[in-house]
Amino acid sequence: MSYILLADGSITSPVGFSAAAVAGGLKQSGALDLAVLYSEADCTAGGVFTRNQVVAAPVTLDRQVLDAGRNQIRGIVANAGNANACTGEAGLVAARQSQREAAGLLGCRAEQLLVLSTGVIGVPLPMKKISAGLKAVAKQLDPSHGILLAKAIMTTDTKPKHLAVKVRLSQGGITIGGVAKGSGMIHPNMATMLGVVTTDAAVPAVLLQELLSASVERTFNRISVDGDTSTNDTVLLLANGASHVSLDDPATIAQFAKALEFVCGELAKMIVRDGEGATKFVEIHVTGATNAQAAHSVAETVATSPLVKTALAGGDPNWGRILAAAGRAGVPLDQARLSLDIASPSHRQLQLVKAGTPTTYSEAEAAAIFAQPEILIHLDLSLGQAEDTMWTTDLTHDYVTINADYRT
Amino acid sequence: MSYILLADGSITSPVGFSAAAVAGGLKQSGALDLAVLYSEADCTAGGVFTRNQVVAAPVTLDRQVLDAGRNQIRGIVANAGNANACTGEAGLVAARQSQREAAGLLGCRAEQLLVLSTGVIGVPLPMKKISAGLKAVAKQLDPSHGILLAKAIMTTDTKPKHLAVKVRLSQGGITIGGVAKGSGMIHPNMATMLGVVTTDAAVPAVLLQELLSASVERTFNRISVDGDTSTNDTVLLLANGASHVSLDDPATIAQFAKALEFVCGELAKMIVRDGEGATKFVEIHVTGATNAQAAHSVAETVATSPLVKTALAGGDPNWGRILAAAGRAGVPLDQARLSLDIASPSHRQLQLVKAGTPTTYSEAEAAAIFAQPEILIHLDLSLGQAEDTMWTTDLTHDYVTINADYRT
Repeated sequence: MSYILLADGSITSPVGFSAAAVAGGLKQSGALDLAVLYSEADCTAGGVFTRNQVVAAPVTLDRQVLDAGRNQIRGIVANAGNANACTGEAGLVAARQSQREAAGLLGCRAEQLLVLSTGVIGVPLPMKKISAGLKAVAKQLDPSHGILLAKAIMTTDTKPKHLAVKVRLSQGGITIGGVAKGSGMIHPNMATMLGVVTTDAAVPAVLLQELLSASVERTFNRISVDGDTSTNDTVLLLANGASHVSLDDPATIAQFAKALEFVCGELAKMIVRDGEGATKFVEIHVTGATNAQAAHSVAETVATSPLVKTALAGGDPNWGRILAAAGRAGVPLDQARLSLDIASPSHRQLQLVKAGTPTTYSEAEAAAIFAQPEILIHLDLSLGQAEDTMWTTDLTHDYVTINADYRT
Repeated sequence: MSYILLADGSITSPVGFSAAAVAGGLKQSGALDLAVLYSEADCTAGGVFTRNQVVAAPVTLDRQVLDAGRNQIRGIVANAGNANACTGEAGLVAARQSQREAAGLLGCRAEQLLVLSTGVIGVPLPMKKISAGLKAVAKQLDPSHGILLAKAIMTTDTKPKHLAVKVRLSQGGITIGGVAKGSGMIHPNMATMLGVVTTDAAVPAVLLQELLSASVERTFNRISVDGDTSTNDTVLLLANGASHVSLDDPATIAQFAKALEFVCGELAKMIVRDGEGATKFVEIHVTGATNAQAAHSVAETVATSPLVKTALAGGDPNWGRILAAAGRAGVPLDQARLSLDIASPSHRQLQLVKAGTPTTYSEAEAAAIFAQPEILIHLDLSLGQAEDTMWTTDLTHDYVTINADYRT
């Protein structure tokens, strides 16, 4: 099975989806900040939401929408500039109002629309601006406007994140497209992010949710920029069946699942690459763990260690910090069995530690690898067969600057 | 019971302890880096060590020393500039050698000395420098040199940390003194730090260990600078009985315990105030939790959140991040019950959130509090009676600078 990566692909690349975005005045910058995705045909839909105990109004609302019915979803209303989080009961009323007003303008029922918000926490949603913006955005729906939605949901992102792939399944050709945003508060579960994925395949709602959950677990839930989990994290998947290709047999389902994971994985990596202040993309690969959870705990602890991440920012192969972080992951380790390798796309693998003891590696070679924009860190625990991978960034001055001044 | 805080107090303030320090060439700066604490009389001793699974050679050695006998300890050999961590079997041999050489020079047995190291990980201890330095330091022992030891164990610390208190127990007067180092890799369990506490009270070894463990749990294990736990963290407590005051009854034990916790608490707060790049000292107070562990998890998650800490650095009362961090602590919360207050020594308490909804607080007043060097954040979960306190710092550009370039 091969994927054809579409130029300028996005959520409107699959047949039957259109989108629009306007500058509704929610962002102080005057950039696009209010958007709509719409399907003329009913979609099955799935969603994965933040596991934070403090959740924004749109998360509460979307959970209710999907619980009430996943077979007649028509679209999504999304805004940036205001997260509608920690806004109390009034926040939920506001989210419902924007859902209802958008439905009136688009010609569907309120409960056929999902809602996404991202931005500052604790500030009431400015409903006058939302109402006016929705009227404008509803008139501009177009199958070529998917990237505008990707732009409208950006916050501290420096670039819109979107792609689409055409896939030939045994049953016929389909397209999967996606957009995402997020560059700070990025951590499972979930990364702080909004993700929207669409497909013109026909997928029953229960299967769709299953496939989405599995994909997210291996992609969006394997990235970390700063260890903070948001109140708003949401990934939605809509399938409108417009390709008339349905997932009828296990082989086709597996093909679709693989393509979906590819799309989610690419979007997740785009988020890490655009991490707040990030200058490096780092893969943490942990092998030899006694079980998958242990492997994940070690990978996650290394991926979020401020000392590891500042060493990465400085290009300093201070590998002791990697071992020290692994040691505090809450997982039994045998330090005499630890081995550590680093590599980059342009440099061969270099072993720094073998059986708990530093090798006689060349410091210059190690520094050359840590100076690269893409780094692989491979820690082998030598205790079992389980492994895990996390994608993370360095921690830079710019991260501090961006987040010290975010609201101002 | 009252404490008399001694001017220039330290580990040599209690009767019968002397210390010395030299510049042994372990620090590139040429500053003091090798030190000895010595007691002419045998001491009972206790120790609390890092819970990191990857531990430095001195931690392994000290655990062995204390397991073998806690009643005849005579002193401590400490160095900065090299952590003797991740150095394999050779590291343990080196630690034993410095212990043995120091014992020969001081006139005691090797197993009567404890060893502390802090500094870079993964580099062999330079034994020639250590041997030469030990010869020099052994000649300079003096009861007025405790602060020199505090200076010798500094790494990125900007100031030595030391104090001593005289306490009148029912049985008579005693003194407790302490020194500590640490300003990065500060997090339970333990904070990255070395701490040495001495007393001239007579305390049986089993009781001494019990009292130290309890004190550390409420002091050194309640501070966080960056969430990273070190391979070397150690707090040692030596009691030589030179005051001839012994802890014979529960009331006296309780008085001593309180004084010990005061000394440990002051040292712990000194570490936070001197946190790498820190410009603010922040107390996170969580109340209304269903149990102590839940209270601690929430306090710890807020205290280590990069987004909370960068908001503190920017003086931005972006309280949504505090609630969002609490929400990902892995503890059941009811967001509609959360209340949040902030205060500073110079500003009255200001309620920002009540029952999950923002109050109509003055943004200027909130910003004025967050601009202070000392801030109290009080989060009430309104679910039960348990509470917890953590002491932390902001996350600044200087933290990144210090840690991106630490080895160079």
